[in-house]
Amino acid sequence: MLNRTEAKQRLTRFRERLAESGVQAALLLMPVDIFYFTGTRQNSALWIPASGEPVLLVRKSLVRAREEGLIGDIRPFPSSKELSALLGREGDKVGMTFDAVPVAQQAWYSKVLPGRSFVDITMLVRELRSVKSPAEIEMLRHSAGKLCSVFSEVSTFLKAGMRELDLAAEMEYRLRRIGHEGYVRMRAFNQELFGGMAVSGGAASYGFFDGAVTGQGLSSASPQGASLCEIRENEPVLVDFAGVFNGYIVDMTRMFVIGALDADLQRAFEVSLEIQEAVRGAMVPGAIGEEIYRQAAAMAEAAGLGGNFMGMPGEQSRFVGHGVGLELDELPVLAQGFAMPLQAGQVVAVEPKFVIPGKGAVGIENTFVVTDAGGERLTELADEIVAL
Amino acid sequence: MLNRTEAKQRLTRFRERLAESGVQAALLLMPVDIFYFTGTRQNSALWIPASGEPVLLVRKSLVRAREEGLIGDIRPFPSSKELSALLGREGDKVGMTFDAVPVAQQAWYSKVLPGRSFVDITMLVRELRSVKSPAEIEMLRHSAGKLCSVFSEVSTFLKAGMRELDLAAEMEYRLRRIGHEGYVRMRAFNQELFGGMAVSGGAASYGFFDGAVTGQGLSSASPQGASLCEIRENEPVLVDFAGVFNGYIVDMTRMFVIGALDADLQRAFEVSLEIQEAVRGAMVPGAIGEEIYRQAAAMAEAAGLGGNFMGMPGEQSRFVGHGVGLELDELPVLAQGFAMPLQAGQVVAVEPKFVIPGKGAVGIENTFVVTDAGGERLTELADEIVAL
Repeated sequence: MLNRTEAKQRLTRFRERLAESGVQAALLLMPVDIFYFTGTRQNSALWIPASGEPVLLVRKSLVRAREEGLIGDIRPFPSSKELSALLGREGDKVGMTFDAVPVAQQAWYSKVLPGRSFVDITMLVRELRSVKSPAEIEMLRHSAGKLCSVFSEVSTFLKAGMRELDLAAEMEYRLRRIGHEGYVRMRAFNQELFGGMAVSGGAASYGFFDGAVTGQGLSSASPQGASLCEIRENEPVLVDFAGVFNGYIVDMTRMFVIGALDADLQRAFEVSLEIQEAVRGAMVPGAIGEEIYRQAAAMAEAAGLGGNFMGMPGEQSRFVGHGVGLELDELPVLAQGFAMPLQAGQVVAVEPKFVIPGKGAVGIENTFVVTDAGGERLTELADEIVAL
Repeated sequence: MLNRTEAKQRLTRFRERLAESGVQAALLLMPVDIFYFTGTRQNSALWIPASGEPVLLVRKSLVRAREEGLIGDIRPFPSSKELSALLGREGDKVGMTFDAVPVAQQAWYSKVLPGRSFVDITMLVRELRSVKSPAEIEMLRHSAGKLCSVFSEVSTFLKAGMRELDLAAEMEYRLRRIGHEGYVRMRAFNQELFGGMAVSGGAASYGFFDGAVTGQGLSSASPQGASLCEIRENEPVLVDFAGVFNGYIVDMTRMFVIGALDADLQRAFEVSLEIQEAVRGAMVPGAIGEEIYRQAAAMAEAAGLGGNFMGMPGEQSRFVGHGVGLELDELPVLAQGFAMPLQAGQVVAVEPKFVIPGKGAVGIENTFVVTDAGGERLTELADEIVAL
């Protein structure tokens, strides 16, 4: 896990960015952001001044925060009166992650910290977190190894006639036994996720989830992932799971079939492999996320599959890859509208997929690190469709 | 699931409350709130005027929202220009749930809906949702039956030497196979939850989670629930799981032991049953949540266990029950500071628990409906410690 040296480096870099942005301090409230800087995820608030030492204010559990935390000043959450004396002064600009902090939280801090103005530092935090250290890449590689080990067993438990739900339950059970933490953190408002999805056949896939494939789910209350539909022969079975170990998330998808896929699906799968390889090659520092997406979409178009790329017609998502790390939806995004250049050490799940109405979804997904030589793959398992 | 008649009743009651509060319309953004009023949980925003028809604006998936949605006007999310023409007018007071909506969302709507003032309607929405209809109580009873069926099997798979994680994985696998939706919705900021916890022995329990028992979890990134600790003979094994079916959540806890518990733990368990029965009897319309909590705490105190009630010394939570429904943390709360009178049809998970340092956690949890005759139990399974 995080060590003291790396915790210091993260703080130093973050303080530099705060100073550059003319922000006197950050007040971080999201558990995952606090964990990134302190090594502990308790119910707490983290104050990081641009110059000065950070302080972690803990509601619960102080004992555990002190056992795990890698910063010096970890104390009980003070009274509102004491807070104002402790956290900066009037006139300060205080950064918060407005993408995720609820209105009521910000309002409360505005009241107890009078005279401070609050500004949005979402992109500053997310961009810093997007570049992974060598130690973090090792954590992700570890997660990838665990996830691949379960994917490599699918052929032992996938059977015709089982429900999508049964297949998902087998994946989840095996992942859990080897230490999957169960909870997949997502940052975007209005998204929610269970561990992954196992979807088969033509009933596949439209829904709220911001990906190519949502799955029908079990009810309108939880309309994503596996359904009660039975898996039949000669249908594409798409298995897309996140592996979460020690907080670090990798994402991958593999295709299975009991029997054989028809020529259209087989061909679409091959195009997804070609797109994956083109994206992988383009994942060098300085490359622009939306240009990579456009190149991918153009390849789909050239193959006559433009209307099926990343979702069914009318429900297409405009991306081909998403950052992963402590959250499933980190920066960078290989998507329309993302113009920031890639940086070495960013980690991206690349997932070209096609949905062919009435037939089902096919595609591939692997997690790669941005390097000078293009994407370095973390999820080391053959891409080919596994036919049983 | 929700039918059109009940959807209408919910809307009518909600509009009355908006009008009473002098709010011209609600703009609901939380998926669970939208689901409650429309029967569909897609990526969308729901506009409910105090007088006039609601409109659901859907980003994704419009197809699915139209298939499932029980209100008349379901349309694609409009351009920001069209939004302002569609959603009220200048001078309107617009209600939002500030407890959960991020600052950036509110800021965006403030910009595209100029001249409106936004006010917090969190309690209005939560209070309305806290009173369950007969149909909702049947949904909860259904979830309870499913959850009890898995709890009743624990004695077939609990073995000395298995890890807490293995026990949790067996619970999760069985729950999942019978339709558990996997994702347990929690509303409170800074809380996160996986499906439940299986914790054993003295290593039990301190952590961020706002309950008596948190569990060590698998890492500092996910410090809750089952750990890698082995379950040993004569240790208390506390199994606390939520059952989520069709969106509706019930919560229960049972105790297990391989061998026998020592006299202190056994006695604390008996006190938890006595407290449960006292709380159950007090759960009538008009009763005050914090008075019920104080009575429970006084019973713990009288039994010499005041310092162990609802958490280990120094980490005690000040509640004895929490509302459940579409979220695990609904109203009412039987807790310090909750002065609102209970209403018939509210549903509460009552969970008196004790943590005895070095020995472990014991307690009970069942889900009850508030009725004139006191709490009516939904989780029908014997309370006794199961000794193997």
